[in-house]
Amino acid sequence: MRDINEANITDAVIQRLADTPDPRLKQIVTGLVRHLHDYVRDVEPSFEEWQLAIDYLTRVGQTCTDKRQEFILLSDTLGVSMLVDAINHRLPEGATETTVLGPFFVAGLPELPPGTNIAGNISGEPLFVGGKVMSAGTGHPLAGAVIDAWQSDDDGYYDVQRPELTEPALRGRFRTDAKGYFHFWSITPHSYPIPDDGPVGAMIRATKRHPYRPAHVHFMISAEGHETLVTHIFAEGDPYLDSDAVFGVKDSLIQTFAAREPGMAPDGRAVTTAWRTLERDFGLKPT
Amino acid sequence: MRDINEANITDAVIQRLADTPDPRLKQIVTGLVRHLHDYVRDVEPSFEEWQLAIDYLTRVGQTCTDKRQEFILLSDTLGVSMLVDAINHRLPEGATETTVLGPFFVAGLPELPPGTNIAGNISGEPLFVGGKVMSAGTGHPLAGAVIDAWQSDDDGYYDVQRPELTEPALRGRFRTDAKGYFHFWSITPHSYPIPDDGPVGAMIRATKRHPYRPAHVHFMISAEGHETLVTHIFAEGDPYLDSDAVFGVKDSLIQTFAAREPGMAPDGRAVTTAWRTLERDFGLKPT
Repeated sequence: MRDINEANITDAVIQRLADTPDPRLKQIVTGLVRHLHDYVRDVEPSFEEWQLAIDYLTRVGQTCTDKRQEFILLSDTLGVSMLVDAINHRLPEGATETTVLGPFFVAGLPELPPGTNIAGNISGEPLFVGGKVMSAGTGHPLAGAVIDAWQSDDDGYYDVQRPELTEPALRGRFRTDAKGYFHFWSITPHSYPIPDDGPVGAMIRATKRHPYRPAHVHFMISAEGHETLVTHIFAEGDPYLDSDAVFGVKDSLIQTFAAREPGMAPDGRAVTTAWRTLERDFGLKPT
Repeated sequence: MRDINEANITDAVIQRLADTPDPRLKQIVTGLVRHLHDYVRDVEPSFEEWQLAIDYLTRVGQTCTDKRQEFILLSDTLGVSMLVDAINHRLPEGATETTVLGPFFVAGLPELPPGTNIAGNISGEPLFVGGKVMSAGTGHPLAGAVIDAWQSDDDGYYDVQRPELTEPALRGRFRTDAKGYFHFWSITPHSYPIPDDGPVGAMIRATKRHPYRPAHVHFMISAEGHETLVTHIFAEGDPYLDSDAVFGVKDSLIQTFAAREPGMAPDGRAVTTAWRTLERDFGLKPT
C-alpha cells in the first residue's frame, strides 16, 4: 500500500504481519499494533509528546542493569504485572493466592537446615516463620516441597541492593519434612519504597503517588505434581496495605505477625527480646 | 484497595492516578493503563511471554546511543510514527503532505549558497533538485523560506552513520529567493534497509518483513507564519514504494526523478555524464 493515511494505516501494518510463521507471535504483534494505534487515536499525542514518550522509554531501558530491572518496575507500578499474574493463576479452592515475583528473587540458593536464621548479622526484631505446605483441594501435606523465602532489611533494602554484601542475606531455601512442615528464623519486615531515583520514580512523583510497599515476606514454593507458587505474606496493620505501589495485595495474603514476649519459641529456642511469629500454611495447585 | 483481582485492577490503577496535577499527563497515563490492560486481557500473555517482552523493551532501550534511536525505529516500523504524523497534520488543500522525520535529521546546519552540491566527494549519479515554496491555499510564493534537505549515499548510509566523516555530507540548508525558488545539486538516492542489526531487525525477520525503504530525499521547510513541513519526496518506479518498512509513502509524495542526457543543466552548469532532475514545488500550511 502506497497511500498511507490516518484511516488505513492500522490495517496496512497488520497486513504487513500476515506472513509471520509463528501463529502466537503473529497474534501478539498484531494485538500490539491494534491496541497501540487505538491508544494513539485516543490521546492524539502531539509530536513533542510522542518524542517525550520515546525519550522516557529510552531512559527506562538505559536504567536497567544486571541488578535493576526498570521495565519490570514500570510494569509493576502500572498494574500490568499483577494483571499478567491474575490471568495466569485462576486458582482452585484451597490454593494460596499469588502475587508479583518482584525484581529481587535470586535463583539457585543452597538448601538450609530447618530453623536456620536467614538474618545472619543483620539486626532487627526476631521473627519465627513456620507452616505447612499442602496440595490444594485434598489438603494432603506435601513432603519435600522446596521453599524459597526472601525479604528486605530494616532500611528497606534487599541483599542484592547492597554491593558490600558478598553472601546471601535475608533469603534462604528450605525443604518441608515428612508431614509438610517447615520453619526458619528471620527479622520482622518493614514497609519500604520501590527504587524511585529513575524514570519510574519520576512517573510516581508526577502522578502524586507514593512509592511504598507494605511490609511482606516473599515465598516461592515448588513441589512435584504442582504449579510453583509465587506469593508474599503481608503484615496486618501496615499503613500501605490499601495503596501498595505495585498493586500486589490480596486479602487472603494478609496475616498477623504476632507479637511475643521474651520466652521459649516453638522450636525450643529461648528468645530474650520481644519477637514475632508468622504462622502460615500454603496450598499448591495440582498440575 | 487491598484485594486486587483480574476484574478490578484496571480501575484500581486508574484510581491511583486521580491526584495527578497536570490534566494532560493524567489523560495520557490513564489512557496508557486502560489500553495496555486491554492488550494484556486480549492476548493473555504467559509469564514467560511477559518476561520476553520486558527483555525485548530493555534491549531496545540499550541499543539507543547518541547516533541511534531504536525506539523511534520501533515506532516507525509499527506504523506509530506515521499515525502520530497523520493526527498532527490534517492539512488544507494545496499543502504538501507530511511524512516521518526519521532518525537522521541534524539541526542547526549553516546556510549554503543556491546551487551548492551537497554530495561533496561522495560519488553517485548527479541530481539537480529545484522548486518553489508557496503558501498553501493562496499559492503566494514564500521568499526567505529555509529548506533543510538530507538523504543517504549509494550504500544506503547517512553521513551520521559513517564515523569517518567529520563534515556534513548529503545534507544542506538553503533559502528561497524573492520569487520563492531554491535549487541545489546532490546525487540520485537509492532504496536502503533500516538499521536491522538490533531488536527491531529481529522483529522484522521474525515477522518475515523486509527492512527496505524506497529511495527518497528528506525535506524540512520552514517559513514565517506557516507550520514547518517535514516530508520526503520518493522516487517513482522504486520497487519498495508499496512496502516501505516504516509506512511513510503517500501518493502525492512520489515524483519522477527524470533521467537526462549529458548537456546543460537549468542553472547553466554543463553535465558530462547521465544525470537526473527532481523538480518539485511545496505548499506550506499557514498557522
